[in-house]
Amino acid sequence: MEFLDRYQEIITAAIEKYKFKEKPVELYEPMNYIIGHRGKRLRPIMVLMACDLFGGDLQKAIKPSLAIEFFHNFTLIHDDIMDEAPLRRNVPTIHTVYGLNTGILSGDALLLKAYKYFEDLEPELFKACIRIFTHTGLLLCEGQQYDINFEVKEDVTYNDYIRMITYKTGMLSACSFEIGALIAGANYANAKAIFNFGKHIGIAFQIMDDYLDVFGEQESFGKKHAGDIYENKKTVLYLLAKEHATEEEEKELDFWYSKKTDNIDKVYGVEKIFRRTKVDEKTLRLVQKHNEIAQEYLQKMDAPEEKKKPFIELANYLLRRDS
Amino acid sequence: MEFLDRYQEIITAAIEKYKFKEKPVELYEPMNYIIGHRGKRLRPIMVLMACDLFGGDLQKAIKPSLAIEFFHNFTLIHDDIMDEAPLRRNVPTIHTVYGLNTGILSGDALLLKAYKYFEDLEPELFKACIRIFTHTGLLLCEGQQYDINFEVKEDVTYNDYIRMITYKTGMLSACSFEIGALIAGANYANAKAIFNFGKHIGIAFQIMDDYLDVFGEQESFGKKHAGDIYENKKTVLYLLAKEHATEEEEKELDFWYSKKTDNIDKVYGVEKIFRRTKVDEKTLRLVQKHNEIAQEYLQKMDAPEEKKKPFIELANYLLRRDS
Repeated sequence: MEFLDRYQEIITAAIEKYKFKEKPVELYEPMNYIIGHRGKRLRPIMVLMACDLFGGDLQKAIKPSLAIEFFHNFTLIHDDIMDEAPLRRNVPTIHTVYGLNTGILSGDALLLKAYKYFEDLEPELFKACIRIFTHTGLLLCEGQQYDINFEVKEDVTYNDYIRMITYKTGMLSACSFEIGALIAGANYANAKAIFNFGKHIGIAFQIMDDYLDVFGEQESFGKKHAGDIYENKKTVLYLLAKEHATEEEEKELDFWYSKKTDNIDKVYGVEKIFRRTKVDEKTLRLVQKHNEIAQEYLQKMDAPEEKKKPFIELANYLLRRDS
Repeated sequence: MEFLDRYQEIITAAIEKYKFKEKPVELYEPMNYIIGHRGKRLRPIMVLMACDLFGGDLQKAIKPSLAIEFFHNFTLIHDDIMDEAPLRRNVPTIHTVYGLNTGILSGDALLLKAYKYFEDLEPELFKACIRIFTHTGLLLCEGQQYDINFEVKEDVTYNDYIRMITYKTGMLSACSFEIGALIAGANYANAKAIFNFGKHIGIAFQIMDDYLDVFGEQESFGKKHAGDIYENKKTVLYLLAKEHATEEEEKELDFWYSKKTDNIDKVYGVEKIFRRTKVDEKTLRLVQKHNEIAQEYLQKMDAPEEKKKPFIELANYLLRRDS
C-alpha cells in the first residue's frame, strides 16, 4: 500500500536521524540493534496516520511516534527473555547476542528513552500523552502477566482471553492512534473514537493471528504450522472448542493439551475437533465482529471521508483479507 | 534522628495507603513485597525534606516521593537479577521468590507506576518533574552499564569511577531533592543548588561505602568484611592504590586482582598495600571534599538557616560520622 510505504519512509528516516549516539556503547548499541531491524513499524505509523486524519502537523508527531516504537521494542526485548526466544524478525534476539543483563538493562533504557521523546510537546499535551502512554504500558504488563498465568491456569475463560489480548495487543494500537489524534488537536470524542478503532483492530488482529496459526497457509504466514497447538496455548480456537465440544471431544482435547509433544497426531487430532466444533468459522466471525465495531468508530469520527480510506485499507491489510 | 523518624512515618503510611490492589496479583504482589520491606527510604524522605525546606505543601509531595521510592525499587529488582543476588534487606530477592520472568515484569511495572505517581501535579510542574526523572533514570542505566563494564575493563580510571558512582548513586538523591524543591515552587538557583547538594552527598556516601567495606567495623556495617576485595571490585581504594603504588606493589595488586579466591591472604596482602599507599586517609579526604562541596551548596540556598539543619544531620548520618 502506497500510503504505508510513505509513512514507513518517514519513520525509517527518523530512526536513522535519532539513532542513539550516547555512551556507553554497550548499553546503546543493543538498543540501536533492535530499533534498526525493520519490523513493519505499524505502531508509529498509526501515530502519524491519526495525526494526518485530524489535520495535524506531522513533524510534531514524529518523535512521539518513535516513542511508541521504542516502547514496543522495549516490550519485545523483555518478552523475548521471558520466552527464551532465540530469534526475532529472523535475527538473534538481544539477550542471545548481548546476554541477559544487557537485555534487561537496554530494555529499561529504551522504555525511559520513550518518555524522553515526548518532551518537545507543550506541557498540557505532554501530560495528556504521558498519561495515556503510562496507562497503556501498565495494561501491557498486566496482559503479559495474564498470558503467563494462562500457561498454568486450568479454567481460562473466553472473557479472560479477550481481556488478555486487549491489554497485550489492542491497547498499544489504541494508544498510538489516540496520541496521534491528540497531537493534531482532535477533540475528546474523536480521540476516544480513534482509540476504540485501534483497540478493536488490535483485538481482531490477534484473533486472526490465532486463526492463521492453524488455518493459515503456512508459507504466507511464515511461522511453524500449528505452533500454538504444539505449545498448548490457550488460543481463541482452543477456548471456543472447549466450549462447544462434546464430552468425548473435551476429553480428547484435555488429553492432548496435558502434554507437550512434537507428535503430528496431536495436531491432526486437535484440528479435527476444531473443525467439528466449527471454531474456524466462529473465529472468523469474531474477527469480523471486531472489525465491524472498529469501522463503526471510524464512521463516527468527524474527519473527511477521503482521509478515512487508509484506515480501512490498514484494517484489511492487518486482517489479511486482501491477500 | 527525630526528623527522619517523622518523615519515615509519613512515607510508611503513604505506602500502606497506596499499596497496589490491582490485578493480576501475580504481577502486583511482588511489587508490594519489595516496597513493603522497609529500607531506610531515604530517597522519598529527600523529596519531603526539600519540599519542607522551601516551604512547600508536603501533601503535594507525597505521591511524587513514592514515585522515587518505586523507581529505586525497580532498579533494585533488576539489579538483583543481574547480580544474581539471593538476598536484599535480609529477605529473599524478588526473582528468587517469584522467578526471573516475574522479576523482570514487576520491575517494569514498578517503573511505569512511578510515572503515574506524578500525575496529580499540574502540567507545567508535571513536565518539569518527569524530565528530571527520565533523565535521571537514563543516567542510572548508564551508570549500571559502566559498573558492569568495569568488571572486565582493565584500565578503569579514577574519573571513570567518579562518573559511575555519580550516575548510579549521586543522581537519584540529586533528583529526589530537586523534585521536592520544584514541588515547593523553589526558583531555578535553589533547585539546582539542592540538586548539587544531593549529588555530592551521594558521591561522598558511595566513596564512604567503599571505605567501610575494608576499614569499617564489621558488626556495625553488617556486611562481609572486605567483600569488594574478594570480588575484585574496582573501588576507589583500589584505584587510588594503583595510582600510588610502587612497581612491586602494583604487581602484587595485579596478582591478587587477577583471580577470585576466598584466601584470607588476599585480603591481608591487599589491605597492607592500601595502608602503605595511604589510600585509607586519601579516601576519607575525598569523602570530606564532597561533603564540603555539598555543604557549600546548602549554604548558598535561599532558605531559613534553621531549616537547613536537618540536611547537615542527614549528611552526617549518611557519612556515618556520628556513629
